[in-house]
Amino acid sequence: MDTERRTPAFSRTEMTELVLPGDSNQLGNILGGRMMHWIDLAAAIAAGRHAGRVAVTASMDSLEFLHPVKVGQVVRLVAQVNWVGHTSMEIGVDVFREDLNLGDVKKTSTAYLTFVALDEEGKPVPVPPLICETEEEQARFHEAEERRKERLKHRHHRD
Amino acid sequence: MDTERRTPAFSRTEMTELVLPGDSNQLGNILGGRMMHWIDLAAAIAAGRHAGRVAVTASMDSLEFLHPVKVGQVVRLVAQVNWVGHTSMEIGVDVFREDLNLGDVKKTSTAYLTFVALDEEGKPVPVPPLICETEEEQARFHEAEERRKERLKHRHHRD
Amino acid sequence: MDTERRTPAFSRTEMTELVLPGDSNQLGNILGGRMMHWIDLAAAIAAGRHAGRVAVTASMDSLEFLHPVKVGQVVRLVAQVNWVGHTSMEIGVDVFREDLNLGDVKKTSTAYLTFVALDEEGKPVPVPPLICETEEEQARFHEAEERRKERLKHRHHRD
Amino acid sequence: MDTERRTPAFSRTEMTELVLPGDSNQLGNILGGRMMHWIDLAAAIAAGRHAGRVAVTASMDSLEFLHPVKVGQVVRLVAQVNWVGHTSMEIGVDVFREDLNLGDVKKTSTAYLTFVALDEEGKPVPVPPLICETEEEQARFHEAEERRKERLKHRHHRD
Amino acid sequence: MDTERRTPAFSRTEMTELVLPGDSNQLGNILGGRMMHWIDLAAAIAAGRHAGRVAVTASMDSLEFLHPVKVGQVVRLVAQVNWVGHTSMEIGVDVFREDLNLGDVKKTSTAYLTFVALDEEGKPVPVPPLICETEEEQARFHEAEERRKERLKHRHHRD
Amino acid sequence: MDTERRTPAFSRTEMTELVLPGDSNQLGNILGGRMMHWIDLAAAIAAGRHAGRVAVTASMDSLEFLHPVKVGQVVRLVAQVNWVGHTSMEIGVDVFREDLNLGDVKKTSTAYLTFVALDEEGKPVPVPPLICETEEEQARFHEAEERRKERLKHRHHRD
Repeated sequence: MDTERRTPAFSRTEMTELVLPGDSNQLGNILGGRMMHWIDLAAAIAAGRHAGRVAVTASMDSLEFLHPVKVGQVVRLVAQVNWVGHTSMEIGVDVFREDLNLGDVKKTSTAYLTFVALDEEGKPVPVPPLICETEEEQARFHEAEERRKERLKHRHHRD
Repeated sequence: MDTERRTPAFSRTEMTELVLPGDSNQLGNILGGRMMHWIDLAAAIAAGRHAGRVAVTASMDSLEFLHPVKVGQVVRLVAQVNWVGHTSMEIGVDVFREDLNLGDVKKTSTAYLTFVALDEEGKPVPVPPLICETEEEQARFHEAEERRKERLKHRHHRD
Repeated sequence: MDTERRTPAFSRTEMTELVLPGDSNQLGNILGGRMMHWIDLAAAIAAGRHAGRVAVTASMDSLEFLHPVKVGQVVRLVAQVNWVGHTSMEIGVDVFREDLNLGDVKKTSTAYLTFVALDEEGKPVPVPPLICETEEEQARFHEAEERRKERLKHRHHRD
Repeated sequence: MDTERRTPAFSRTEMTELVLPGDSNQLGNILGGRMMHWIDLAAAIAAGRHAGRVAVTASMDSLEFLHPVKVGQVVRLVAQVNWVGHTSMEIGVDVFREDLNLGDVKKTSTAYLTFVALDEEGKPVPVPPLICETEEEQARFHEAEERRKERLKHRHHRD
Repeated sequence: MDTERRTPAFSRTEMTELVLPGDSNQLGNILGGRMMHWIDLAAAIAAGRHAGRVAVTASMDSLEFLHPVKVGQVVRLVAQVNWVGHTSMEIGVDVFREDLNLGDVKKTSTAYLTFVALDEEGKPVPVPPLICETEEEQARFHEAEERRKERLKHRHHRD
Repeated sequence: MDTERRTPAFSRTEMTELVLPGDSNQLGNILGGRMMHWIDLAAAIAAGRHAGRVAVTASMDSLEFLHPVKVGQVVRLVAQVNWVGHTSMEIGVDVFREDLNLGDVKKTSTAYLTFVALDEEGKPVPVPPLICETEEEQARFHEAEERRKERLKHRHHRD
């Protein structure tokens, strides 16, 4: 594996998608599940870049769609590693909707996902530490830690 | 619109999917976003059946993936309207993973989504009331109401 | 493999799909092949559940589409094992179209497919017997046996 | 519409597809439904070319898959209008599987589908007559007529 | 591998596609990338047939889209091996657009792609010589050779 | 339309994709056509952002794939408007392949595409001028102009 320093910027992932008829319902609104699929992919790439290996989705925090997104509009997603534990990582994804005609950009969602890095047999495997240098990165790290504590309280028992 | 009584059973939706190579990563694990897409579709159908018209995703509560799901396994989703407001509905989706060889069934996720019914211009439109007859239906309704209050507390301001 | 009794109910499979623009032609009618794909998947899951392993399509009996199906409508498929031989199974699939607005349900197709269970090398492998308990299940079994005889008469020689 | 003579050759349609991992199950066998989708598309194009307008699937006769088809193999489909009625057409589709390594070609299926031409409102609309010149074309026409009589006998009542 | 003579006709590949809403933008125009995907697949099949094994895209020459292609129209692609080197092949693909209503056929593109045959480890592997018998085949071979020289001049250094 | 200044940075588009089994051939190599599809989409978004409306692909210059791309790797695309004419624009797309394990990034392709902005009837429509401020932007503009002259020389007559 490379030896580059794993800051949040190292694995920051930007994804841009054009909403096509095949992504939408009969009114031309994007399917919520299509949007979730893009959010998950952006987060999976950021997690994979940080871990230096494949990572899989363990959970997603609650997600709101604040603005309708229509066919012909553009969706931009920015994913960033906020926090890193032993084998798991929290990824934040900001989702923006752009209208080409109106030159109008709105943030439609903020998502937080937990990913776990896997080895070739599919077993969880330790990930490199996250180097938080700026104040903003450190603030994000601490907020993520709070969310993690909240999540652990509500966690389901695996049966 | 038909005049049938809108109980939770009226719109209950069952979906079964076979996990194929095109749904998975290079280790043969299902993509989290593929699973979310199925959850959203099952919920969209239940919401659309209740409302008697198209409905779109407004939010999804936090979601955990408790067990890995692999290519060749079967995913069964059961979606049900738990609660109905003026134009919005809460849909609960239970997700089960089955292994054909092992005859083994596990619940991997429980999801709660909010949908809004839309008219032909894409404007929110009132939905029929939900008729909860059994004790279980009434308990689900009240739990959903609690989740809704929680959600409203944390709601983002739409900018 | 599990030891549960293999009745038709054991492997009964219900699938619900929302017809989206990506499933349709330029008039908003579902593609026949998209419908066939769903029928085949529902049957493959029922066959796989009965056999406890992957099963592949060997044949499909003649199929009619009795009612048009349009974007925004819902398709519900119910697949059930009717008959079981040494390595092959007959699966029946009933297909229903629902219109959300009209609250109107129509059966659009009934399909009968033959599946063969395969081992890891892709060789046909014996499947568990089908336990038919109710009169209806026994009637279905006998009808399927008649269809099988008909099929064998018309079977193509494999060259 | 053009004034070219509508022989079977006029609308003959050839389609070639490479079987990819996204078309297959976990053993690398093509999904039966994927094959049916290609058969339906090839037939839809032949029907559309003959009718000079969009046509939709009304039925498919029984279909056998005589040989396994695997990822990396090539599927060639040849569709041809065999018979034409007032608004409906019978299309025959021959399906061949090729193995690149073995240089081996096998016919895996022969399908017969009925299509109906539609106007812009989705109503059935008359199609041009089929001009059968060669003896083979005339023989195909008569065989198709026999199949049609058989089909009408077994036809489901539309409810 | 089979011992059939590898002429251009041996591996000639014809592909026909119906342009569906899922292939298009919000105006109903086909996506350029969807067209390129079909061109690449047709060429990959022709190259694979000639080589008797899987082949991958190394380059595509400049490509123009001369006529708009809309949902509901038909795209026909004809791919042919023009030239063969040690491990690489040039494939020419002609792309035609048909309008069902107008009975109107236009050539929208001509593409030239280079493919390399690979062994099971993904290493380039020699391909059979191309037997050019007709004058037209020989002319195509020489034109392809000229294009190859042009390409080598402009080739990027692999870094 | 908004009044923001249309520099190359204004419409710069970054897209990141994870290569999945559904994007690849049986050896796990990405399909060339899948890559072309992503290149075209990234360029379509950059062109659409600059024009403030939908734009369609008119041509793509020759394209090389310098390095193999495999399932599990990441593809990053950066698209930028280089030049603008009356109704057409040249978009440059740089394509990078990353290997998560090796921490290794390679530029695999550079593509130049021409797009035309369309009005609601699908007719070409003027686009805003491109404001090139930095020396690099001006150099890109002039190189694009040279490529355009080259293209016009070789242009096919539309028949």
